[in-house]
Amino acid sequence: MSAATRFLRACRRQPTDRTPVWIMRQAGRYLPEYRTLRARHGFLELCKTPELAARVTLMPIERFPVDAAILFADILLVLEPMGVGLEFAAGDGPIIRRPVRTRADVDALARVPAAEGLGYVLETVRLARERLADRVPLIGFAGAPFTLASYVIEGGGSRQYRHTKTLMYTDPAAWHGLMERLSETVVEYLQAQVAAGAQALQVFDSWVGCLGPDDYRAYVLPHMRATFAALAASGVPVIHFGTGTAALLELVREAGGDVIGLDWHVDLADAWRRLGYDVAVQGNLDPVALFAPVEEIRRRVGRILERAGGRPGHVFNLGHGVLPETPLAHVGALIDAVHELSARD
Amino acid sequence: MSAATRFLRACRRQPTDRTPVWIMRQAGRYLPEYRTLRARHGFLELCKTPELAARVTLMPIERFPVDAAILFADILLVLEPMGVGLEFAAGDGPIIRRPVRTRADVDALARVPAAEGLGYVLETVRLARERLADRVPLIGFAGAPFTLASYVIEGGGSRQYRHTKTLMYTDPAAWHGLMERLSETVVEYLQAQVAAGAQALQVFDSWVGCLGPDDYRAYVLPHMRATFAALAASGVPVIHFGTGTAALLELVREAGGDVIGLDWHVDLADAWRRLGYDVAVQGNLDPVALFAPVEEIRRRVGRILERAGGRPGHVFNLGHGVLPETPLAHVGALIDAVHELSARD
Repeated sequence: MSAATRFLRACRRQPTDRTPVWIMRQAGRYLPEYRTLRARHGFLELCKTPELAARVTLMPIERFPVDAAILFADILLVLEPMGVGLEFAAGDGPIIRRPVRTRADVDALARVPAAEGLGYVLETVRLARERLADRVPLIGFAGAPFTLASYVIEGGGSRQYRHTKTLMYTDPAAWHGLMERLSETVVEYLQAQVAAGAQALQVFDSWVGCLGPDDYRAYVLPHMRATFAALAASGVPVIHFGTGTAALLELVREAGGDVIGLDWHVDLADAWRRLGYDVAVQGNLDPVALFAPVEEIRRRVGRILERAGGRPGHVFNLGHGVLPETPLAHVGALIDAVHELSARD
Repeated sequence: MSAATRFLRACRRQPTDRTPVWIMRQAGRYLPEYRTLRARHGFLELCKTPELAARVTLMPIERFPVDAAILFADILLVLEPMGVGLEFAAGDGPIIRRPVRTRADVDALARVPAAEGLGYVLETVRLARERLADRVPLIGFAGAPFTLASYVIEGGGSRQYRHTKTLMYTDPAAWHGLMERLSETVVEYLQAQVAAGAQALQVFDSWVGCLGPDDYRAYVLPHMRATFAALAASGVPVIHFGTGTAALLELVREAGGDVIGLDWHVDLADAWRRLGYDVAVQGNLDPVALFAPVEEIRRRVGRILERAGGRPGHVFNLGHGVLPETPLAHVGALIDAVHELSARD
């Protein structure tokens, strides 16, 4: 068995020779070759130039024996063709110039097919897939409706999600209208990524952990269920990732996905038991653990593998994206540790 | 039964005529009378002028029928006499000019008794207690060792806690040395608050939710256990509050406290069952729910009261501090809703 099949088999809970591993944001700022490229090109420019975006997608593959590649893109790209005025300001993170806060704002969102508004992403998928030449599978991705809604409503990142929750609580019809629009858009976009060659998908509901269980059930679950039901027809495994979801795991499972992404706040064994063993899991090393000495990283990898108990259906990953300041050698040590400590041959 | 006893009885899990309620940061920026005072005085100046700090402590009591007052102060004041260079920069949050990142830094921390370095807080406690005239009890408070350590190490607020965890993982002896020092300091400070008249205490471990269960157990639990064991001798109820603790609740309980503070991420009924009914709970309305229409606030209050099941030992509160932009009338509506919907007479 080779790296070409390990990740997809684990997503389907089939036995593998060792636990597959990839790293969220593995094609990103902790790589010196990425920083060199980024010094010459703006972030959106990189995303929109398939030749460059495909090159970035392959960077971690050339350097590390990871078991999957993930498309270089951003979860917010899908919002641009909707006409909200997406910008990436240097140092300040994403900005949405025309936030959506009323039913009229929701109705005014443009409907543009992915092939038209996001053709550059689909071209990146085709190019990256071709260059990977089946060494490892390619993961496509998108933001989940709630996380996208939070950016669109707040006008950027947020700590409290005040405008997002205020819309939910004061105008539920507008809220559900927005979530439906985002769900449809995300589904169409991800289906187009699969058609272009993506072999698995990850849906990032990065900020959904700001909600309590009642709010998740009322305002998010129906839309996530619709999203995952539509994606199931794509025939590729779908990973459902969120952070801060310790109190939401049963509902996250109910929403759907073949693999549930876990952050580092939860014990993997506890979380998998709560989710049920008829779903695969991904995770869950604390990204900051990569700042520990290599022996400590190995110890922590070993502990997570122990918690997974050698059960088929574990994809090793961090609990959130790798941090830009992470020592490169420690990333290599992590990947080697996963493969060595999980070797079952 | 009156407001004078309701809160303390609930902390001790004794029956009450209605569920007591107070609000984290109730003496703060959402109050116009506070903003007026703050326009004329710096934040540290307010804290350090007992006459003014006592006046702020009583502001919410004059306006709302809350069941407890909480000392106006800041969790970081305790750090100033240790010599780390605490400042509150306008708009930027707290700054620690001389962060602690080595064993030598830990050993260099000054040892100053609370009566000397924090005499102004103790004087505020005395003044506020006198002016409350037993209308409602006065809660004293301090930051927990982990949360204080995170500020001292990072040099201010943080999102990733990179330096904090790096110290833990690379120099555990320095880490434990710092936690011991902070624990001793917090205990002595809180005991002095009780001696000055505080009738209950809250320990804020606001940021401990950034840790997974293994790290909490290894790096925090022993120090929290020591802290709560020492405080038990004070004879007043102690509230143990944290956010993001959904995966840590059993360990938080093990650490100690008569009342466990819950944030809004968890279902109160689930959380209380996990904690055990031999401890009281406090919480847990989402602070952002106060931006909802009043009928929706009442509905949410009712739901939390239902989850508490009328069991003695529930103190109603938000899941974290009230936000500065919160409509004043909605705070009043919340407090009335708690009292009306929980009336057992």
